[in-house]
Amino acid sequence: MDEKRLQKQFDFIREIDKEKQIIRQTYISDASRKEDDAEHAWHLAMMAMLLGEYSNEELSCEKTICMCLVHDLVEVYAGDTYAYDEVGNASKREREVAAADKLFGMLPEDQAAYMRGLWDEFEEAKTPEARFAHTLDKIQPLMLNHETKGLAWKEHGIRASQVYKRNEHTADGSEALWKYSDEHFIKPNIGGALADDRDL
Amino acid sequence: MDEKRLQKQFDFIREIDKEKQIIRQTYISDASRKEDDAEHAWHLAMMAMLLGEYSNEELSCEKTICMCLVHDLVEVYAGDTYAYDEVGNASKREREVAAADKLFGMLPEDQAAYMRGLWDEFEEAKTPEARFAHTLDKIQPLMLNHETKGLAWKEHGIRASQVYKRNEHTADGSEALWKYSDEHFIKPNIGGALADDRDL
Repeated sequence: MDEKRLQKQFDFIREIDKEKQIIRQTYISDASRKEDDAEHAWHLAMMAMLLGEYSNEELSCEKTICMCLVHDLVEVYAGDTYAYDEVGNASKREREVAAADKLFGMLPEDQAAYMRGLWDEFEEAKTPEARFAHTLDKIQPLMLNHETKGLAWKEHGIRASQVYKRNEHTADGSEALWKYSDEHFIKPNIGGALADDRDL
Repeated sequence: MDEKRLQKQFDFIREIDKEKQIIRQTYISDASRKEDDAEHAWHLAMMAMLLGEYSNEELSCEKTICMCLVHDLVEVYAGDTYAYDEVGNASKREREVAAADKLFGMLPEDQAAYMRGLWDEFEEAKTPEARFAHTLDKIQPLMLNHETKGLAWKEHGIRASQVYKRNEHTADGSEALWKYSDEHFIKPNIGGALADDRDL
């Protein structure tokens, strides 16, 4: 056994424990507290296991699950950037690339390349798996926002037009899941938790 | 699209959000709080992605990852039973089977059977994937206990012999990972956080 290789792998596995401390803006379903990145990644991976049949294109379930598991890892160094934070989003890409170099660089070369490849593929959103993972990444917080009566939306004063702008590509991975989410998670909150500014 | 099917799938996906509220006894790496089941499942799935090469037997990486993701789902109804809680462990199996019937029964039949199959396979621990998932399920808390200077062990007054008893099958999934974990996560704590009762 190559002890150095295993040491690197465990150093990485211990380092990514920090995902449990990266707090998102979305509340968990009982609205008691905000969700963290590790919980979010687990939830997306479960959705990838169960909802792959609704992908617009054929996909590898395994690759999609793995992509969901790793898609936010860079945030252990770069932090979470709220979807509607314009200033944060301007510097997000740069911060995340530096984080990816540092984090994935901890792994043995072959696994560093594999992990980085999965993350790059997610970021580029050009393959069926990446498009579908992005769709899940958008509808999971919609579901939790609806479940918690729009708590995070209200806290940040989010308006309907912002949610639709944010979701302009959500149908790219799955028309069916976008349609369902719009009907069940967004529309019932317009005029309530979400101010209706669509005709302004 | 079959709206009823999708409704069932979303009902299940929302229900399992409760895994984020099931608290384990192990502390996260900065010792600030205890870990929850969703975080733990994500961490195991990441370990399955990275450590499969150390399995004693050839295995399907995808199946192992999926098993890690679902292995504790029944705890949304049955609760977490601490590894060293003898009373809780006596009734654990019965509580968990009832929980599995209820929880997986929310899904469309084909997916209910798939999920239940994965969980049963994990519980029986007779396949390479199940044996390896059990190994990961044991060494992840060992790693976090070591990282947090044995905080959970100290809190519960756990002794070395209990840890070895608890891990009598950990090598069944991977001799290499057990050997590493014993050397790096258990032995350094014996006589410290873990009372040395091995010769008693």
